[in-house]
Amino acid sequence: MKYCFGVDIGGTTVKLGLFEAEGEGKILDKWEITTDTSRNGEAILPDISASIKKKTEEFQIVCEDVLGIGVGVPAPVTSDGIVRGSANLGWTYKEVKREMEELTGMKAFIGNDANVAALGEMWKGGGAGHKNLIMVTLGTGVGGGVIIDGKILVGAHGAGGEIGHICVNYDETDSCGCGNHGCLEQYASATGIVRLAKKKLGEEMSPTILNKSDVTAKDVFDAVKAGDETAVEIAVEFGVYLGHALANLAAVTDPEVFVIGGGVSKAGEVLIPYIKEPYMERAFFANKSVEFVLATLGNDAGICGAAKLVLDE
Amino acid sequence: MKYCFGVDIGGTTVKLGLFEAEGEGKILDKWEITTDTSRNGEAILPDISASIKKKTEEFQIVCEDVLGIGVGVPAPVTSDGIVRGSANLGWTYKEVKREMEELTGMKAFIGNDANVAALGEMWKGGGAGHKNLIMVTLGTGVGGGVIIDGKILVGAHGAGGEIGHICVNYDETDSCGCGNHGCLEQYASATGIVRLAKKKLGEEMSPTILNKSDVTAKDVFDAVKAGDETAVEIAVEFGVYLGHALANLAAVTDPEVFVIGGGVSKAGEVLIPYIKEPYMERAFFANKSVEFVLATLGNDAGICGAAKLVLDE
Repeated sequence: MKYCFGVDIGGTTVKLGLFEAEGEGKILDKWEITTDTSRNGEAILPDISASIKKKTEEFQIVCEDVLGIGVGVPAPVTSDGIVRGSANLGWTYKEVKREMEELTGMKAFIGNDANVAALGEMWKGGGAGHKNLIMVTLGTGVGGGVIIDGKILVGAHGAGGEIGHICVNYDETDSCGCGNHGCLEQYASATGIVRLAKKKLGEEMSPTILNKSDVTAKDVFDAVKAGDETAVEIAVEFGVYLGHALANLAAVTDPEVFVIGGGVSKAGEVLIPYIKEPYMERAFFANKSVEFVLATLGNDAGICGAAKLVLDE
Repeated sequence: MKYCFGVDIGGTTVKLGLFEAEGEGKILDKWEITTDTSRNGEAILPDISASIKKKTEEFQIVCEDVLGIGVGVPAPVTSDGIVRGSANLGWTYKEVKREMEELTGMKAFIGNDANVAALGEMWKGGGAGHKNLIMVTLGTGVGGGVIIDGKILVGAHGAGGEIGHICVNYDETDSCGCGNHGCLEQYASATGIVRLAKKKLGEEMSPTILNKSDVTAKDVFDAVKAGDETAVEIAVEFGVYLGHALANLAAVTDPEVFVIGGGVSKAGEVLIPYIKEPYMERAFFANKSVEFVLATLGNDAGICGAAKLVLDE
């Protein structure tokens, strides 16, 4: 049997998985270690390497039977595995591929975390069976991954799939974290939904179960499920921004399926019509048949996609 | 020596080229035949086949030395070379790859014409030296081709790169040819520029050299070069729609270069700042370094890109 590792580096924890590299790519084990961001995150890769070596001993796997290590990183990653800075990890310029290979003696394949999660959902999740998909991760921000013919759209600077920074409102005066105004992230992330909710609750006269001073994205969709009209209006606004953005994305990338993931997607199927209706209203005719599904792998999308990076080589 | 053919099927003429399949891919000959769109265009592929056979005899090339025939078609083309309808050619469902191979006894590779032109500009034109580019063709409509890591983004339904049908104005009341409202094509095509010009000339009080009842996209940019203020205002409006759309495209596809082609691009370098300035205003930071260049191959982009389809196999 051959094996591979999938690693998903986050700002707080590193998730790791050991996979069979044959058949279905069964997950044999998964575990976490703490992300040590001190001293510009210089210990992160050595810590991962040590953890992987320990695991190979535990499973009595010889180095030659490991096809490689896939790694998802919260930053743009060039196709040769170089990161030019990750605020979450403290990294500045880092040759992640080269360092991982030197540390472990195994082949390493590096990708952006949102892109890698999209690959994971294609392999084992909501997008299984498709080769052209877009994953939208609605978390604190809005991340994205575009898969074209089974491969991640990496882009020239490793910044492909930055869906959150598509401008969807040229009249916006509030700033996005990136410095622009009107980015999708300002309306469709968990934070963005709270922003929409607070605005709506500030101007709203109708009775609502939402609490203006303490509202979360989850509260909004719970209230939608309870039939709260104000919450529905917020969901409509969220959906119009996201659905219209996805229609524009589809015109360029022509996917088979949109996979909706991230914390916001835990609201479940209730989300889909709010996104799909405005999408259909604006989609180019060739893109009207695109499916909308929820992500199914949750926190495992990253390690799965990272393992798939290895298997695809 | 090995050879290949590049074929660009248009609604009026079919352009053909014979290329060396080694070294620089020198063009040995290029010629045109009429597109016979009668009887649902059933003669188009046989006519092309006959023309290619005649050319191989003329050049005394044996069939075994032809690596294949690349064909650009004005319609979405799936990755297995199937077209589900082309209004310009009269085609309904057509297995273009299979038919061409049966007619010629040579391998055939089929692509959408705008996508294929983008590949041509990457190979021998304005995008030479780059592997990640977006070509925007500003003609009667707005076409596009997205090249990712040297390959055309074909998409699930062969409709990748339909840049002209990105919505750039959600307040538009006029309809686009596709049935939607506010498509990029309504502002950045030759026709779209005339539309912007007529609107502006209808409301404009300032003196202008533009003639309201008979204005073309060329007139507008000629007047821009002559310093006409009204024309400059039209160019600014055109550029804002196009530049902002390209910024959104870049966030998703992360290109190295935008290649601007089509009839409108004959205006020359004067176009670029009108597109680039609004682009820079809205581009995600990772995409600020993208270059803007003019297409250089003109009508040869299609045959060159079609030949490259063969060479890339």
